[in-house]
Amino acid sequence: MPIGNNSQAADRRDSDSSLGSAIWEGLDGWIFGTRLMRFVSDFGSPQGEVAGDFGTRDTALRTLTRLGAPVPPGFAISNVACRLFVQTGDLPEGAWDEIEAAVTRLDEAAGLIDPDRPVLLSVRSSAPVDMPALMDAALHIGTTAESTRTFADWADEHAAMRARVRFLETYARVIRGVPARRIGAISGAISPTSTTTQLATASAALEALIIEETQRPVPANRLSQVREGIEAVFASWNARPATAYRRVNGIPDETGTGAVVHLMVFGNLDEHSGVGVGFSRNPTTGAPSPAGRYRNEADHPTTAYEYQGLDALAVADTETHQTLETALASYERERLDMVRLDYVREKGRLWILEGRVAERTPEAAAKVAVDLVAEGVLSREAALARLDPQHLGTMMHARLAPGDLPKPIAAGSGSSPGAATGIVVLDSPTAMAAAAAGQSVILVKRETTPEDLEAIRRVAGVLTSHGGRASHAALVARGMGTPAVTGSFDMLIDVDTNQVRWGDTVIRAGDTISIDGTGGLVYAGELSLIKGAQTEEFSTILSWADEARRLEVWANADTPADAAAARAAGAEGIGLARTEYMFSGDRLEVVQRILLTSDPRERADALEQLERLQVGDFERLLDVMDGQPVVVRLLDPPLHEFLPDRLDVEHELAEARALGEPTTELESLEATLDKFEESNPMLGLRGVRLAVVIPAVYKVQVLAALEAVRRRLDAGGDPRLELMIPLVGTVEELHLIRDMIEEEVHNAGRLLEVTVGTMIELPRAALVAGEIARESDFFSFGTNDLTQTTMGLSRDDAEEAFIAQYLRRGLFRRNPFETIDPAGVGRLIKVAIEEGRAANPELIVGVCGEHGADPESIDFFHNAGVDYVSCSPPRLPIARLAAAQAALRNGGS
Amino acid sequence: MPIGNNSQAADRRDSDSSLGSAIWEGLDGWIFGTRLMRFVSDFGSPQGEVAGDFGTRDTALRTLTRLGAPVPPGFAISNVACRLFVQTGDLPEGAWDEIEAAVTRLDEAAGLIDPDRPVLLSVRSSAPVDMPALMDAALHIGTTAESTRTFADWADEHAAMRARVRFLETYARVIRGVPARRIGAISGAISPTSTTTQLATASAALEALIIEETQRPVPANRLSQVREGIEAVFASWNARPATAYRRVNGIPDETGTGAVVHLMVFGNLDEHSGVGVGFSRNPTTGAPSPAGRYRNEADHPTTAYEYQGLDALAVADTETHQTLETALASYERERLDMVRLDYVREKGRLWILEGRVAERTPEAAAKVAVDLVAEGVLSREAALARLDPQHLGTMMHARLAPGDLPKPIAAGSGSSPGAATGIVVLDSPTAMAAAAAGQSVILVKRETTPEDLEAIRRVAGVLTSHGGRASHAALVARGMGTPAVTGSFDMLIDVDTNQVRWGDTVIRAGDTISIDGTGGLVYAGELSLIKGAQTEEFSTILSWADEARRLEVWANADTPADAAAARAAGAEGIGLARTEYMFSGDRLEVVQRILLTSDPRERADALEQLERLQVGDFERLLDVMDGQPVVVRLLDPPLHEFLPDRLDVEHELAEARALGEPTTELESLEATLDKFEESNPMLGLRGVRLAVVIPAVYKVQVLAALEAVRRRLDAGGDPRLELMIPLVGTVEELHLIRDMIEEEVHNAGRLLEVTVGTMIELPRAALVAGEIARESDFFSFGTNDLTQTTMGLSRDDAEEAFIAQYLRRGLFRRNPFETIDPAGVGRLIKVAIEEGRAANPELIVGVCGEHGADPESIDFFHNAGVDYVSCSPPRLPIARLAAAQAALRNGGS
Repeated sequence: MPIGNNSQAADRRDSDSSLGSAIWEGLDGWIFGTRLMRFVSDFGSPQGEVAGDFGTRDTALRTLTRLGAPVPPGFAISNVACRLFVQTGDLPEGAWDEIEAAVTRLDEAAGLIDPDRPVLLSVRSSAPVDMPALMDAALHIGTTAESTRTFADWADEHAAMRARVRFLETYARVIRGVPARRIGAISGAISPTSTTTQLATASAALEALIIEETQRPVPANRLSQVREGIEAVFASWNARPATAYRRVNGIPDETGTGAVVHLMVFGNLDEHSGVGVGFSRNPTTGAPSPAGRYRNEADHPTTAYEYQGLDALAVADTETHQTLETALASYERERLDMVRLDYVREKGRLWILEGRVAERTPEAAAKVAVDLVAEGVLSREAALARLDPQHLGTMMHARLAPGDLPKPIAAGSGSSPGAATGIVVLDSPTAMAAAAAGQSVILVKRETTPEDLEAIRRVAGVLTSHGGRASHAALVARGMGTPAVTGSFDMLIDVDTNQVRWGDTVIRAGDTISIDGTGGLVYAGELSLIKGAQTEEFSTILSWADEARRLEVWANADTPADAAAARAAGAEGIGLARTEYMFSGDRLEVVQRILLTSDPRERADALEQLERLQVGDFERLLDVMDGQPVVVRLLDPPLHEFLPDRLDVEHELAEARALGEPTTELESLEATLDKFEESNPMLGLRGVRLAVVIPAVYKVQVLAALEAVRRRLDAGGDPRLELMIPLVGTVEELHLIRDMIEEEVHNAGRLLEVTVGTMIELPRAALVAGEIARESDFFSFGTNDLTQTTMGLSRDDAEEAFIAQYLRRGLFRRNPFETIDPAGVGRLIKVAIEEGRAANPELIVGVCGEHGADPESIDFFHNAGVDYVSCSPPRLPIARLAAAQAALRNGGS
Repeated sequence: MPIGNNSQAADRRDSDSSLGSAIWEGLDGWIFGTRLMRFVSDFGSPQGEVAGDFGTRDTALRTLTRLGAPVPPGFAISNVACRLFVQTGDLPEGAWDEIEAAVTRLDEAAGLIDPDRPVLLSVRSSAPVDMPALMDAALHIGTTAESTRTFADWADEHAAMRARVRFLETYARVIRGVPARRIGAISGAISPTSTTTQLATASAALEALIIEETQRPVPANRLSQVREGIEAVFASWNARPATAYRRVNGIPDETGTGAVVHLMVFGNLDEHSGVGVGFSRNPTTGAPSPAGRYRNEADHPTTAYEYQGLDALAVADTETHQTLETALASYERERLDMVRLDYVREKGRLWILEGRVAERTPEAAAKVAVDLVAEGVLSREAALARLDPQHLGTMMHARLAPGDLPKPIAAGSGSSPGAATGIVVLDSPTAMAAAAAGQSVILVKRETTPEDLEAIRRVAGVLTSHGGRASHAALVARGMGTPAVTGSFDMLIDVDTNQVRWGDTVIRAGDTISIDGTGGLVYAGELSLIKGAQTEEFSTILSWADEARRLEVWANADTPADAAAARAAGAEGIGLARTEYMFSGDRLEVVQRILLTSDPRERADALEQLERLQVGDFERLLDVMDGQPVVVRLLDPPLHEFLPDRLDVEHELAEARALGEPTTELESLEATLDKFEESNPMLGLRGVRLAVVIPAVYKVQVLAALEAVRRRLDAGGDPRLELMIPLVGTVEELHLIRDMIEEEVHNAGRLLEVTVGTMIELPRAALVAGEIARESDFFSFGTNDLTQTTMGLSRDDAEEAFIAQYLRRGLFRRNPFETIDPAGVGRLIKVAIEEGRAANPELIVGVCGEHGADPESIDFFHNAGVDYVSCSPPRLPIARLAAAQAALRNGGS
């Protein structure tokens, strides 16, 4: 309806801002108009009928309580209370009564533990989906003059005052919104060595600050503090960090968060106190014995410590250590996975404050999964289902060794995973020479072009200032397994002075830097790396995955070496061999001759030379992949990609003119570039259109491919050539090329069989897939290009210009160049498969875009009925595992 | 299935090339396995049960015969005979027997006319759809030694030998395929003044040539010649010119052509012989009296002659003249339209050889239609249905005066209809100055940019070397009604020497040229023009059209002047006001300040200035369109369109460096251009994406639009503002802008109502139209961009690079930037309308792309349920008429 502030529009607005019935919308099933169910439940009691959900923090503490682990007494408040609070500004009717009663029960339980202790409370969020540290927590709630005296009696004055100051800091910031700058001005003056008097001064100053800033003192009433704390936690659900996180992660806004309130325990009281983390297994190696760390309060200032077993705790306190190990074991059995418990030792007594499934290295993840299956705890299927393919995939790549990393000097897109360290080189020829001389090189450029292909293969890493995860540099590096950071936008490359600058940071060519292509970070100097390798357990998991999956997993590979690597990594075919990559390096000169000469004889010579070269290319590829399908894509990119850069030529021309040198040749080159120049090359003369306008190149490629098949047959091989036509938009285009191929097959004069298919990478191709399928043996979805055209997004431009911003603001849920857009691009894929198969039941359907190794996309492809995904060789393990998960999740294995 | 020459593939091929059952496929209903029906029918007998169709030439001659007009005796052969001939290489069983019998009947009829005359035959194609002059004809068939003697006795030796030579020329070329070069070597030596002996020599030489080239003499048997003639005509159905024409015009290949065989008559025998054309009305003016021309054989050599009544014939022969006028009148009554008859006067006797509906000027077309309705011959609906909107539309534009035109010096795309003549100017500032001084100017550029907007409005015509019918120059010129020829690709502009060159042709700035923007031609010098104007009859037709149509017709207009013109031309609203056109001229400086300054205060100033300017723009537009909707599109183009050209800046920089001048400012500009540079700007940072990244510009536009609405309300007006968001791909984007507008409407603090809608110009937008419609008051299909993305075609590049070739080769049936592609783009439109309306039944649906004035596209839009089309003001009559035809054709008026 039109936007207006008159008539109905205004009415609608009024009713929105009053407490109308809308508030109750969406709560059906919990509330039914009047409140039938409870909002609050103690950890130790059965959850019962609850309005809504208590969240993950509650679930862990409730479970641990049930298992007999030492959890402080406490209770949880449901997310429905949060939701109503956010909508109305008030806790719902009855909720506060329940909370008051629960606090009373908590007090009683605390009295049973130790009647002399101060009963301070912590209030934390407990959301239905874990949102780490993004919402506010209110701690030391219940700090009053009286509680501070009790604390001093129970521990000592200093500890009591420390707790009081911490309470005031948190209270001022979280509950009253006092600017952090003003709080810091006071609390910055105190330290662990401050005296009790200094702490008392700070405490008084904070109380005064709160009054000055908010015109209200800290309530002396403990229950008022509890109420304020709960409301502050609920309000933080809709504050900036949490909403941004939810947008990016696709978590719905409307659920709201639960909250957990429990007795505070203190790990900083005496030499019998401390804090630590326990793991049910080793989170670095996956070894099946408990690990963790413990820091005794007596040991501060803090020392760095590794996960190395729980020896420190065992030494300090055998009993506590035993209690923790028992809790870890029983909680692991409950979660059927390696778990982590955060604990406090208070005056020699263990308290567990948090439990969750443990984060781990990829090696540990694989080992834990395989061990849990071996121990009979998990089925193979369950083990496969819970692994994160992307995470496990990083095992294949070198990583920065853990430990204290220096501050990065720059950031960009993590565009090809793995870490690398090497000397900075600013151009490809120098980079190749240095690499050939045995140096580890980081190639640093504005962006890369096909001329940089060989260099990207040989260097240790790539760093560019332009282009995102779908840029040329990113795609090529990912395909070759070379770590890359792209789009480090504030990086300025000064080729004249051989320097790279980020603001004041200057790196000279020849200096050593390190890059983390997984996280997208750049570091000065050499950092130590952990080499990537596939562990035995990971191989075991992949073999289970292969049994479980329905989708075949093929690889994109352009060279015999890549193909061999792919085959070794489990590829069942080559889904995309890009012939343009065969035009790079020395070949570029041949291709340029074809395009630039006006002499038909020279062009014919060059074409023949190209044909000879390509025969060898195809023959070696078919040899490596003997008995498996090899999909060769005929030339795709716009021709100007094979020509010199326009700006370079203009510069040379200007220079030549200024120096009075001859310019005829450069002018003729300029005219040719002018002819090939396109405003939007992505939508221009490329793919099958080249074959319509300049038929010779495709013909040469087809002849070369057929000759390669013949040679392989002569050698007794089993070549399975499939020719793929790119950028088809009409069945007439496909028909034209198919006819040409058919003619050449018959001219070949002996028994040859060639499968011919098309890429589906234009929306129109998907929309007329029924027609196209009748002329096509297979479809291969080029999901990169299909995403570009369906969404009108240039992958070369959009990532740096706005996709990051779109993701941050929730305008995109996922980067569509990483995860298939189901409603748009995905819908076209489904239509094309359905109508293509209806027209041609024999149609084979594959995906050869970048999405072929993205787990969420693979799930989509599995359900859409795709036959195979094809991805770059280093990503094959990810695809194999994700394909298995898709089959397990959706059936159809 | 895979292409292969082994196993099944080879089998299939064998069976294709032998005479299998496939030949009979598609003939069901005519033949039923054995031949039940006839292939041949005389003009004078009832057609009866026939296998297939005799074609349009037969229909005309058969009808004229029935009406008693003097048609030579003859017969027709059905297209099924052609089809079977093409498939098998033989005439079908029985057909030849029928033909032989028909020739015998023809001989008898000829004998009744004049027993002494030679009976030569003409064999011509008669296709189901008219394919003018694209197939072969075999004339003077039956020329033998005997027939030549008979001819000489009946007429004279010279006439007999002329006929013999003509027969041999045609026979050699059409039936025997002798190269035209060799025939020309002989027939080039003879002329109308050649003696009989010279003719006899040529005749003998041609007979010898036929033997030399084909090893067979001309058959002496007359029936053999008839058979060869019929087979040659049938074979030409599948020859190059006819197949190409069919592809381009979407005529099916499989129908085949019929053929017509009749007695040849001769207009070149004596002073009582001649040839001519008659029209039932004046084809130039439409005046309701017969017109035509006649050339007496005695008058050759040929003189040029106009359609001026049939006086010459009336003077020569009252009786023949009367017979022709009677035939014209009765045939017009039969066809219910102005007709044309081609006739021969042979020895004082009239023979009619061809009849068809007459070609005419647009003025005549309108007048004939209105007169036929007034005469009660046609209903209004029938009159509307048969008019060609495109043709009538050309009446609005100046045209080259008919007569002998000089040879064009160059060709390009006819990108904006109308003709113009003026002096060549190579840049916009000079062009505007010259136009202001009263000169008629043709602006000649490589391509145009937004900086040329004002100039395009003021000059007489535009000529560019780059870009097709969808280029900037074409779109803008069409919108403003300025004639334009674009994409004259071999034109080289040398700004240094102020010259334009096409090969050897050189035109200097200041020279006068003429352009025909309808036909895409360029002429040297000043040609005389006929001014465009709407005749009274055309206005009458448009008023009928308005009653008949369901689709509303709105206009694309950016300025108050264009809007006023549109309203005067019948526009019912403004469907597209492009705000970027408000950023041109003097405003460009303000926009550049916004983009280039790093001083926030200067930017704020510039934004404020822009807002003030836009308030005035919008206010004037809403004033002109008071009471009608005005759809204002918020800024759409990529920002670099408002910045200086990159290459220019590079040149200046190189120059400054060479001269040692300061370069800081240019370098900073270069850096900004670098930042804004995009590989594929069409898919880059534009439309709503600008508003996400740089919210200030949209906000300024919204504020200006609201202020304009307020001022119009204050003035007692009825402003109907609709704000349109371009390039929306996700509902989240639309939501963001809608929220901003809603906020500004409420901040406005008084009663305002604004409709907010979105363009659907990305495939994704169409695919998620259901979601988008819930936040949208209207959809407006941007069919240009939707075509670009759906088909992956850049309109700036593709037209010159390959679309022309695609059309020639039948890979596209229509230029998709002119006529909507129904299977791809059209399918998305239908999906979007269906799902959009399901989600929001109030949704208004319009089309504002270039297709809004294309009749075939309008038919599609009518059926798809579009509410309005919006087109440039000069094309409104076309759209109004086409919309009426769509309603009449499909119902739903």
